[in-house]
Amino acid sequence: MTNDSNARPGGPGGGLASEARELLAGSRWGVLATLVPEAGTPYASLVEVLPLPHGDAIMLLSGLAEHRRYLDADPRASLLVTSAHAAEDPLTAPRLTLVGNARLEEDPAAVRGPYLELHPGAAAYVDFPDFAFYRLRVARARFIAGFGRMGWIEGESYRNG
Amino acid sequence: MTNDSNARPGGPGGGLASEARELLAGSRWGVLATLVPEAGTPYASLVEVLPLPHGDAIMLLSGLAEHRRYLDADPRASLLVTSAHAAEDPLTAPRLTLVGNARLEEDPAAVRGPYLELHPGAAAYVDFPDFAFYRLRVARARFIAGFGRMGWIEGESYRNG
Repeated sequence: MTNDSNARPGGPGGGLASEARELLAGSRWGVLATLVPEAGTPYASLVEVLPLPHGDAIMLLSGLAEHRRYLDADPRASLLVTSAHAAEDPLTAPRLTLVGNARLEEDPAAVRGPYLELHPGAAAYVDFPDFAFYRLRVARARFIAGFGRMGWIEGESYRNG
Repeated sequence: MTNDSNARPGGPGGGLASEARELLAGSRWGVLATLVPEAGTPYASLVEVLPLPHGDAIMLLSGLAEHRRYLDADPRASLLVTSAHAAEDPLTAPRLTLVGNARLEEDPAAVRGPYLELHPGAAAYVDFPDFAFYRLRVARARFIAGFGRMGWIEGESYRNG
């Protein structure tokens, strides 16, 4: 796709990465794609997210949830966020696919406060022993910003572009 | 999960399958999870859907779209639909994960009319040679109907339950 060249930092669409992170920053939830162990089939499920400044996403996952078991077996994951929630025609709205690995967050204490600020309802279960923070570390992203403005954005460009 | 027993047809939650299909029937779009060829990593993307009466879903996919290429290489797919679009707390809203194979629809003429009725904007590109109808044939579904009411629903139970 020729318009994929838009994703080049400094190119005509050099602002794509920051625009993509902005879309994520405004998101409170998304749809996670994980892999069913053994079978390797994809599985789509709803998650609440806490966007992080450099474009990773934090999720608070229950040990009872299918996607948590799947991630523990294989951390490869993808997360879609979109601004289309209320749109008449969602395909005209920007959306962002993040691709990477989702693993237990190494510093849960640091994300707890911001997470609860964004998701106050989670206070009811955040301290249950079977809940844990996971971080989707983004390796690449595909951003559809608008008609003819789309592209893959690779790791470092996505984080700092 | 003990509450998974709710999915048994005729059990205390015997209505889950029809409730699940109802949620799908009210959906115009969803998030598709596909597999990136070779790597086998999951990929989440936005799609418009036409729900079918027995619970399959039709998608109109562009040959330029990543997910179309992915499905042509491996038809395994999952589709999430939710009623949470405008909700303050999406995790309290019902949502449905469909799991199955998505392939070229065998009878595109039959779905064209209903698709355009639901998505009038698609008239602008439905006849482009690189667009084609795909059908997600559902093998099983996971339905989260509400707190404590959730479960896997297997093929025939999902279609006819």
